[in-house]
Amino acid sequence: MRNFKLTIAYDGTDFHGWQIQPNAVTVQEVMEAAARRFSGEAQPLKASGRTDAGVHAWGQVASWEYGGKLEPPALQAAFNGILPATIRVRRLAEVDASFHARKSAQAKTYLYLIDNAPVADPFRLRYAWHLRRPLDLAALKTASAALLGSHDFLSFKAADGETATSRRTIFQARWFRHGRQLCFMVRGSGFLKNMVRIMVGTMVEIGFCKSPPQHLAQVIAARSRSAAGPTAPPHGLILRSVEY
Amino acid sequence: MRNFKLTIAYDGTDFHGWQIQPNAVTVQEVMEAAARRFSGEAQPLKASGRTDAGVHAWGQVASWEYGGKLEPPALQAAFNGILPATIRVRRLAEVDASFHARKSAQAKTYLYLIDNAPVADPFRLRYAWHLRRPLDLAALKTASAALLGSHDFLSFKAADGETATSRRTIFQARWFRHGRQLCFMVRGSGFLKNMVRIMVGTMVEIGFCKSPPQHLAQVIAARSRSAAGPTAPPHGLILRSVEY
Repeated sequence: MRNFKLTIAYDGTDFHGWQIQPNAVTVQEVMEAAARRFSGEAQPLKASGRTDAGVHAWGQVASWEYGGKLEPPALQAAFNGILPATIRVRRLAEVDASFHARKSAQAKTYLYLIDNAPVADPFRLRYAWHLRRPLDLAALKTASAALLGSHDFLSFKAADGETATSRRTIFQARWFRHGRQLCFMVRGSGFLKNMVRIMVGTMVEIGFCKSPPQHLAQVIAARSRSAAGPTAPPHGLILRSVEY
Repeated sequence: MRNFKLTIAYDGTDFHGWQIQPNAVTVQEVMEAAARRFSGEAQPLKASGRTDAGVHAWGQVASWEYGGKLEPPALQAAFNGILPATIRVRRLAEVDASFHARKSAQAKTYLYLIDNAPVADPFRLRYAWHLRRPLDLAALKTASAALLGSHDFLSFKAADGETATSRRTIFQARWFRHGRQLCFMVRGSGFLKNMVRIMVGTMVEIGFCKSPPQHLAQVIAARSRSAAGPTAPPHGLILRSVEY
């Protein structure tokens, strides 16, 4: 079998996340069905990680084994010819047999978008969380510095999230303004289930001045989901890239 | 009656354009129904002009008469509370009785977006025309200069478009790159039915080097729809603003 690396973009609006599950349409299921159709083989697509229902991706990465003779350009065209337009294989390359999209990942970058204006932008409905009250960008910037470095992020893990350890390393965490949008970019070694969304939900309370910026360090130290704020909605979140 | 100016954004994907018509949902119809519901009055919304089915707006303007006591902030909230999220009243102000969104308009600006990359961006599906082959931006820039000034734009009028004269003045016409997108911005005194879309369809043939840049001046001079290229699809077009 030959091994391939796929870089995938999807609009998560119409999918119940990446991972195959009963009674719901997922990106993985749709992509594996497409692969079966042109390859005649039933090989799984192994992604860098799951994305939740409604979360988007610009640079999700999956590894995939294939025993046929098609070359990368033809394979990419075969996927994109069958897939719905809301899922696109942006790049496809043959890689070493040792490459595994999840195990080989070194870092991931997520972006969370907030449409922060009195009246929602109808063109950002699916791709940004609308919050009409102005957030304090300076407070958000100050708070987010507490995320940097290696921490036990247990406070930012969904109750049903399964992982052996909740220690992760955050390399970059940055809030910035882009027109009327406030954007949170975070790059880390890996992320727990709902981790970015709980970080954003907690920081939004700081941005609304319900808690001071120092509150975020206290939430991390508490190692308890109940210390953190609510989970921000999925549609503002996008997996931007995975590094290897 | 008091007179109001509404600035309206809408995602045109789910609407059969602005203007009320039988057996199809239009933006005007949905907005007039909303106004009836909170005002108890059946007043028309008079827009700066129609937009075709599937065309978007960021700054459509409508004038509207109302005899009640609500003030602008409450009226705006009343509209936005009833309207679907794909239509938003961005601004609402009381204006002089003489203001008429169509008759008082001095200029309109449209933007046409082309997603010009081998693989379509799933997040631009509804808002940009995907063309995989690279367009020649320099040729587009050269060609578009021919549009400037006052011309009879009969070649760029849909066969079923009704207007007394097809003479219009174009103040600005500019192609530029924005990341992977090519954008055409055009500002003029007014536009015939499908005019921007036929301009874009004609210029795309120039961008693909099927015709030289000088071809556009010949198309204008021909004063015949058959001299121009195809009509570009509606979903790449957005009415950006109307000036008074």
